[in-house]
Amino acid sequence: MARSSQFAFYPVILAGGRGTRFWPLSRKRMAKQLLPLNSEKSMIQETVERLLPLANAKQFWIITNGDLRDAIARQLKGLDKKQIIAEPVGRNTAPAIGLAAFLLERRDPTAVIGMFPSDHVIANEKRFREDIKGAAQIAATGENIVVIGIPPARAETGYGYIEVGDQPQNGILQVRRFTEKPSVEVAEQFVKAGNFFWNSGMFIWSAQTLANALREHLPNTSPLLEEIVASYGTRTFDKTFAKLYPRCENISIDYAVLEPRSAKGEGKSNIYCIPASFGWNDLGSWTALYEHRSSGKADGENVIHAQQSFTLNAEGNFIHSKRKFVAAVGVKNLVVVETDDALLITTREHSQDVGKVVKHLDEKKLKRLV
Amino acid sequence: MARSSQFAFYPVILAGGRGTRFWPLSRKRMAKQLLPLNSEKSMIQETVERLLPLANAKQFWIITNGDLRDAIARQLKGLDKKQIIAEPVGRNTAPAIGLAAFLLERRDPTAVIGMFPSDHVIANEKRFREDIKGAAQIAATGENIVVIGIPPARAETGYGYIEVGDQPQNGILQVRRFTEKPSVEVAEQFVKAGNFFWNSGMFIWSAQTLANALREHLPNTSPLLEEIVASYGTRTFDKTFAKLYPRCENISIDYAVLEPRSAKGEGKSNIYCIPASFGWNDLGSWTALYEHRSSGKADGENVIHAQQSFTLNAEGNFIHSKRKFVAAVGVKNLVVVETDDALLITTREHSQDVGKVVKHLDEKKLKRLV
Repeated sequence: MARSSQFAFYPVILAGGRGTRFWPLSRKRMAKQLLPLNSEKSMIQETVERLLPLANAKQFWIITNGDLRDAIARQLKGLDKKQIIAEPVGRNTAPAIGLAAFLLERRDPTAVIGMFPSDHVIANEKRFREDIKGAAQIAATGENIVVIGIPPARAETGYGYIEVGDQPQNGILQVRRFTEKPSVEVAEQFVKAGNFFWNSGMFIWSAQTLANALREHLPNTSPLLEEIVASYGTRTFDKTFAKLYPRCENISIDYAVLEPRSAKGEGKSNIYCIPASFGWNDLGSWTALYEHRSSGKADGENVIHAQQSFTLNAEGNFIHSKRKFVAAVGVKNLVVVETDDALLITTREHSQDVGKVVKHLDEKKLKRLV
Repeated sequence: MARSSQFAFYPVILAGGRGTRFWPLSRKRMAKQLLPLNSEKSMIQETVERLLPLANAKQFWIITNGDLRDAIARQLKGLDKKQIIAEPVGRNTAPAIGLAAFLLERRDPTAVIGMFPSDHVIANEKRFREDIKGAAQIAATGENIVVIGIPPARAETGYGYIEVGDQPQNGILQVRRFTEKPSVEVAEQFVKAGNFFWNSGMFIWSAQTLANALREHLPNTSPLLEEIVASYGTRTFDKTFAKLYPRCENISIDYAVLEPRSAKGEGKSNIYCIPASFGWNDLGSWTALYEHRSSGKADGENVIHAQQSFTLNAEGNFIHSKRKFVAAVGVKNLVVVETDDALLITTREHSQDVGKVVKHLDEKKLKRLV
């Protein structure tokens, strides 16, 4: 697309997350997006490769942090290290994508920017690219913002939802409202209603549209970002970046731009939703990974990553101990993950509490373990 | 005692067991008796040290197998390697103790032999030695056989029981009958009756008494054993041992001598029982080890051998992962044991099935893991 259309497409991949829920495999310097959770390739390698047919490798940006930059560079050999930007401090998605917006606005205001998480599973890459192409076409035409919405598979309370209007405009769903993580009851209503989608965190706009939106909604942060990008490519960049970026607001693009803009009301917001036609999984926990890996298999299947294994009356366990012989006897629905220096033992039910282990390690200053 | 009495005391420690129930810590070349399960010292080191006040180090015999002999020699530096005898094949306890009996009969028929398992926990060593001293005094007087009986703490179906007569003879309990492992119902009756003890596997007799008993009850095996010991100390010993020992009956001393002899009836068998006045635990499984290690602690205590650990809603778990940080979240009553090459995950309820893992490894010829 990038090569055949009148506009250039720039994927901006956000890869600054820590992903503590995959501890002890995930660490400060080896976050979830760097792990090969879905295939032999890491999540970020998969993310880049599935977008490569849509954009020249030179058009990618990776926004991450200093702990992860070198490891990401080693995994993404096709990119120049300059394309991998390490935030001096984490400032959430609005300043991160803002950097790309203001930078590209100076070069090519009609450039289309796609913002992508770096740690999601996409089941069908071809369908994914078709959806992104469609989104980019809409984004290239006027001041449109496009978000990819995931058809909700359950009344999930861990995601934000996108409410769309009942009537498509020119065949395209218009966003009525972004909502925060709902209660169970509200989530159930959303799923029942049929005009709600999970917020995938994938947004597509032109550089101009995004830059203008940021100027409007983040009037204090935008001049700082513009000053930073003005120094890009010069000797003073690192210094300017380190000085000004911490002064930017720590805010998500959803909260900064999309929610207030959608609040303007249907038909005026220019925010559109393309329902994903591809299978999607954000692998939010070891349990989600178990479910992803065991889907299509018999109920109670064990998912075991080990050199060899033996199970006896064992069901529904996720066990990762790559270099060892694993024996599971009489255990059900456990999550056991072993690394060179740590051993996690929990259940599928409790795996969302793994973040609390990392919190404990942070508090105890056990730095080598986080 | 050995030094102050008219008779010499010879501890014979049986250390040929494989102890598969402590897999993956126990291995063919690192059986349960070589593991430091109860303290920093191994079970066999503890066994020897608790007997050392009763006999000169030169009077000990260790009967084991070729897989374990070198490791035992490394652990028992106070013994000469000649004192550690490796059976060419395992032949159960009767031929093993028979070797000691026929050997000592030639040197000193009045020598008293004590047969001891190498892998039991003795809570009070001083009381243990008092009991053994008492037993040895009885064994030294006439053709008496003495067995140490453990007062039953529960209706255990995994042990043999010793039934004693209601009336002590000269203050000593006389054995009426040895019984095999009972059903639950029978075990409950035994515990209730009050004149039943667990068979500890600790027996004390004079060399002469034991040698004569073997000649009477194992008329085919005894000449083979006598031929073997006749070559002891000569160049032909290894060859003779390797040739004749496999032809000995594969039978326990209980089954070969004690049961038939006790069947002769009360008052005629000359078998006596000394109830143990010391705390005893045979550590038959990971679960038994958990119970031993957690005794005296709060209900649901976790027993964790790790470099460091963190628990959250975790109760009653036994976790061994010595060099790692262990995190246990939301798990109960598990047994998790990690070694350099294996990871066992089971429950306290299922830990007796660990032998089945070893059986699987044997069948699959995964020799490095057994």
